[in-house]
Amino acid sequence: MKQADYDSWARTEIDAVERALEAWVPSDAPAGLGLAMRYGVLDGGKRLRPLLVLAASQAVHGLREAAMRAACAVELIHAYSLIHDDMPCMDNDVLRRGKPTVHVQFGEARAMLAGDAMQALAFEVLTPCNEQLGAPGAASSVPPALQARLCSLLARSAGHNGMAGGQAIDLASIGLPLDEHTLRDMHHRKTGALLQGSVLMGAACGSATAEQWSALADYGDALGLAFQVIDDILDVTQASVTLGKTAGKDIDNNKPTYVTVLGLEAARRHAHELRDKAQAALARSGLADAAWLSVLADKVVERDS
Amino acid sequence: MKQADYDSWARTEIDAVERALEAWVPSDAPAGLGLAMRYGVLDGGKRLRPLLVLAASQAVHGLREAAMRAACAVELIHAYSLIHDDMPCMDNDVLRRGKPTVHVQFGEARAMLAGDAMQALAFEVLTPCNEQLGAPGAASSVPPALQARLCSLLARSAGHNGMAGGQAIDLASIGLPLDEHTLRDMHHRKTGALLQGSVLMGAACGSATAEQWSALADYGDALGLAFQVIDDILDVTQASVTLGKTAGKDIDNNKPTYVTVLGLEAARRHAHELRDKAQAALARSGLADAAWLSVLADKVVERDS
Repeated sequence: MKQADYDSWARTEIDAVERALEAWVPSDAPAGLGLAMRYGVLDGGKRLRPLLVLAASQAVHGLREAAMRAACAVELIHAYSLIHDDMPCMDNDVLRRGKPTVHVQFGEARAMLAGDAMQALAFEVLTPCNEQLGAPGAASSVPPALQARLCSLLARSAGHNGMAGGQAIDLASIGLPLDEHTLRDMHHRKTGALLQGSVLMGAACGSATAEQWSALADYGDALGLAFQVIDDILDVTQASVTLGKTAGKDIDNNKPTYVTVLGLEAARRHAHELRDKAQAALARSGLADAAWLSVLADKVVERDS
Repeated sequence: MKQADYDSWARTEIDAVERALEAWVPSDAPAGLGLAMRYGVLDGGKRLRPLLVLAASQAVHGLREAAMRAACAVELIHAYSLIHDDMPCMDNDVLRRGKPTVHVQFGEARAMLAGDAMQALAFEVLTPCNEQLGAPGAASSVPPALQARLCSLLARSAGHNGMAGGQAIDLASIGLPLDEHTLRDMHHRKTGALLQGSVLMGAACGSATAEQWSALADYGDALGLAFQVIDDILDVTQASVTLGKTAGKDIDNNKPTYVTVLGLEAARRHAHELRDKAQAALARSGLADAAWLSVLADKVVERDS
């Protein structure tokens, strides 16, 4: 029952996110830039981050337009990071979501620019307030103070203290023995920050008490780490065709992972502990409408791709 | 007199911008990322964009803290675009502001990430509102609605309709004959959008009437184009040592410029026409305290590096 309801909710929300991205990511940006941007973000991915935003917003009865903008903005940031991460100077990957990566399809220069433009677009989507520049969809129900708060949360999740910082550690750690503490710090930033940011951006769309905010932050933190532990496990246990990206590349790249540091079984146990921690934080929040957040924490750990 | 006053004002403001960037660009971002970010933005450049923000803000008696944040944010965007633009997959340049470019100094991967993190940091600097994430400098005098407006202006100047879009046209136009119209569109976006955006962000910090806003937009538009025409001229008339970057690279890269399309003399005349247009727009604004904006329009056309 819960599962069927969740599936129906998730399908509806993913459709809504696709439609919104379809409208907001321009096809007519010059010199093929729009095509590269659309290729990089449309019609692919599990949309976990948008679902987290929307589920968290729903849990606090958040403003729908704000949550949808936040959901798309966070996915734009995620998608741009994948484009840049796949480039030859980074992970040099040719396959993503079962398709050639953006730089393979559009060239390196255009891939880099598409990523850059997608990061800017994320903040455009969050700030539909600029009548003077003739932005589309002039009228918006999102209060400017909420727009600013969402920009703040997104920028801090994406930047040097978040995703970009985590990727820098990731790069620097290739071939090095990392202890669990450093590995955790890397993943906290690299994957965790944007997943936690998704939850908090959703929470910012409604009215959460300080206690609820803190509980949701803990939920997002545990879920983010669980996601990465599972990612590390899937990299060694699944085939590329299931993942839609190159499997085994952490080992090929000699990158430390939860599997290399803890071993496969201990990594699995750790993922389950983190899931339990996320569920406990959710229970502590006392939010009555947090069922989808609860399902999402299970899904993150139970996924096979 | 006017010149001496301007020089003193500009020196004081540039010092203030350097101090603010020094404080806001982290030295302790992980794995050398902070060092690369600081290398890319500190202690270099003419700081034209920050000066435009601060001069425009002063003309409308804008809020000082907001203007300083906007000045630094716009410079972070400019500096990140130079880092990415210099990379091997783009212009492949090794010299910038008289120093090795960021990717030469720190490697390509870290250069790309530093640029990405600097774009995020620009929006962090604009949104000092997020007490929950323990952001430094919790108390801020910038109203959230102004934070949102500044984010909106910056995102639109930097993204596919602005700078990133212009760079995509630039890339795609290598070796192609461009007419003046297409060349103008490219430069409007590539350089003009962020220069105009700087003026408008400054204007947003105070209270400009709709007419004043429109006049400042025209001023920024003409100044932005004049800047690029002069850039094209300097690329063929100056030595690398004067420019602090590789001279003659437009021709080496077979890029269309105002000089190749109009010829050197006609390009010079055009720059002066654009300067006059900027001054006329400024006069039309009726702003009493726009003297520095007026000097800046002259400087842009008279500069030799």
